[in-house]
Amino acid sequence: MAHRDMIIDGDLSSALAAYLPVPYNDRPFVTLTYAQLLDSRIAAQPGTRTVISHQQTKAMTHYIRHHHDAILVGIGTVLADDPKLNCRYYLATSSSSSIRPVVLDPHAKWRYSQSQLRSLVDAQQGLAPLILVDADTEPDTSESHLLQATGGHYIKIPVIGQPLQTVWNTIYKQLWDHHHIRSIMVEGGATVINDLLTLGNYDSLIVTIGPVFLGDKGVVVSPQRAIADLQAVQWWTGIQDSVLMARQSSTTLNKYRLINY
Amino acid sequence: MAHRDMIIDGDLSSALAAYLPVPYNDRPFVTLTYAQLLDSRIAAQPGTRTVISHQQTKAMTHYIRHHHDAILVGIGTVLADDPKLNCRYYLATSSSSSIRPVVLDPHAKWRYSQSQLRSLVDAQQGLAPLILVDADTEPDTSESHLLQATGGHYIKIPVIGQPLQTVWNTIYKQLWDHHHIRSIMVEGGATVINDLLTLGNYDSLIVTIGPVFLGDKGVVVSPQRAIADLQAVQWWTGIQDSVLMARQSSTTLNKYRLINY
Ligand SMILES: NC(=O)c1ccc[n+]([C@@H]2O[C@H](COP(=O)([O-])OP(=O)(O)OC[C@H]3O[C@@H](n4cnc5c(N)ncnc54)[C@H](OP(=O)(O)O)[C@@H]3O)[C@@H](O)[C@H]2O)c1
Ligand SMILES: NC(=O)c1ccc[n+]([C@@H]2O[C@H](COP(=O)([O-])OP(=O)(O)OC[C@H]3O[C@@H](n4cnc5c(N)ncnc54)[C@H](OP(=O)(O)O)[C@@H]3O)[C@@H](O)[C@H]2O)c1
Repeated sequence: MAHRDMIIDGDLSSALAAYLPVPYNDRPFVTLTYAQLLDSRIAAQPGTRTVISHQQTKAMTHYIRHHHDAILVGIGTVLADDPKLNCRYYLATSSSSSIRPVVLDPHAKWRYSQSQLRSLVDAQQGLAPLILVDADTEPDTSESHLLQATGGHYIKIPVIGQPLQTVWNTIYKQLWDHHHIRSIMVEGGATVINDLLTLGNYDSLIVTIGPVFLGDKGVVVSPQRAIADLQAVQWWTGIQDSVLMARQSSTTLNKYRLINY
Repeated sequence: MAHRDMIIDGDLSSALAAYLPVPYNDRPFVTLTYAQLLDSRIAAQPGTRTVISHQQTKAMTHYIRHHHDAILVGIGTVLADDPKLNCRYYLATSSSSSIRPVVLDPHAKWRYSQSQLRSLVDAQQGLAPLILVDADTEPDTSESHLLQATGGHYIKIPVIGQPLQTVWNTIYKQLWDHHHIRSIMVEGGATVINDLLTLGNYDSLIVTIGPVFLGDKGVVVSPQRAIADLQAVQWWTGIQDSVLMARQSSTTLNKYRLINY
């Protein structure tokens, strides 16, 4: 495994150490990460991709990915960004395929067969995804065959019409029980981030802030409640961006996550 | 003049030096400053005051005030916060009265006679304010007498129904021509900040970011256009908050401010 350790600063990796996954007995460790601008926007317009973070903080994101078993995003992000979801800025070798992409796609909208991720998987540069669809959704048969052939799966769980808390507990439990996933990095998009911030069901929060504004047509991150109890808050400043790192308070975790778990 | 220099860090005052007012020939230097949370909210609800920044960054704000001739806020802020608008966290002595409060109050809603600022002025701990009212507004006579007796003024300028650009150019010119104001620190509230960010008619931008979220009922800062050309961007990190400092680009200044000036 050839680590390109040079890519992320020593002081950054020391700072990050306190926010990386630790083993739990009964549920995955969840890291919530995203890159925003000063006006809390994460994309210039709905359905579009905006380059927000500097190469340096992008490398940080890939470094953090490398410490997780899975990376999870919503279907909105997949359709807007066609993301590669691997650790290519941090690891140059095929070991960049060690993280499992998970896509929350209740209506099975995604054409995996036509995605960049599929090309990566074919080139053995990434693991095939797990696609979470609603229990009542029937994925396209040829997509399903292709996915299974490359090592991925559709996972049916009750999602549509379920309370938010239940949806996320089900996802975490499914990934833990049946896919040996012990740590999940949740990277977006806006809907998923806002829901997790509001629910509080994550363990670490890592937010990159870029020194620009996107304007009021941008896609916004804004939880539905105040969050004033983040723990172990730390800022790290790079060439361009500032990075906030924090841990969820145990009170919030107990209150918002462990119910029904 | 007894400076409490101990209150702000040496590295912070060095960092700030590049963003403090420099003398111009024809217009005041304008610094735009505010404190926000991660979700770009500057108060928990409209019309309320929320303590956002740490004592340390509050001291920074008062240090910056001390380098300006005037501090300007909108009437929304005055009604919500009843602010003292002086440099008390930085200067302990009566020299904290050296900054001139300016309030943009087109409809003359403010009862200065009942404000905390009035008590400070009476106790010789602050200068009486300049209150910018619309040309067609007639302030209350007793308020007007009291204001003048303590050294303040109502200033009538065309505001209501004027284009934003004209309003702000008129304000800057009025303060420059008739009140010897060579530098203005604009501190809020949301309407004023959003307008100035959108117009681009400021020279320095200093934003404090606190590591919490206020939730989606909060008062938001969000310019109407993207701003991607900030210059000389620098981050400073304190005990709790991160501070962004930047200078306006000369292209933006020329484009947005100097028209009709
Ligand atoms: N800067 C960054 O860090 C960053 C990172 C990632 C994404 N982004 C941006 O974010 C934007 C995408 O955000 P988004 O809000 O549109 O999409 P998203 O959060 O990626 O996905 C939202 C979709 O996921 C499904 N979903 C999410 N939560 C669900 C729940 N509890 N129950 C059922 N379904 C659920 C729904 O699919 P259905 O519609 O099928 O019901 C929903 O519409 C893009 O512009 C992207 O570029 C930015
Ligand atoms: N965290 C911070 O750094 C910070 C700093 C300051 C304030 N705040 C918060 O901000 C909130 C107040 O914001 P706000 O938007 O309500 O008030 P604001 O920006 O202080 O004042 C807005 C008012 O000023 C007048 N005005 C502004 N621009 C004008 C223009 N171009 N032409 C004519 N009139 C103009 C209007 O008065 P009329 O309504 O009479 O027309 C307008 O309603 C409060 O909750 C306060 O706590 C936070």
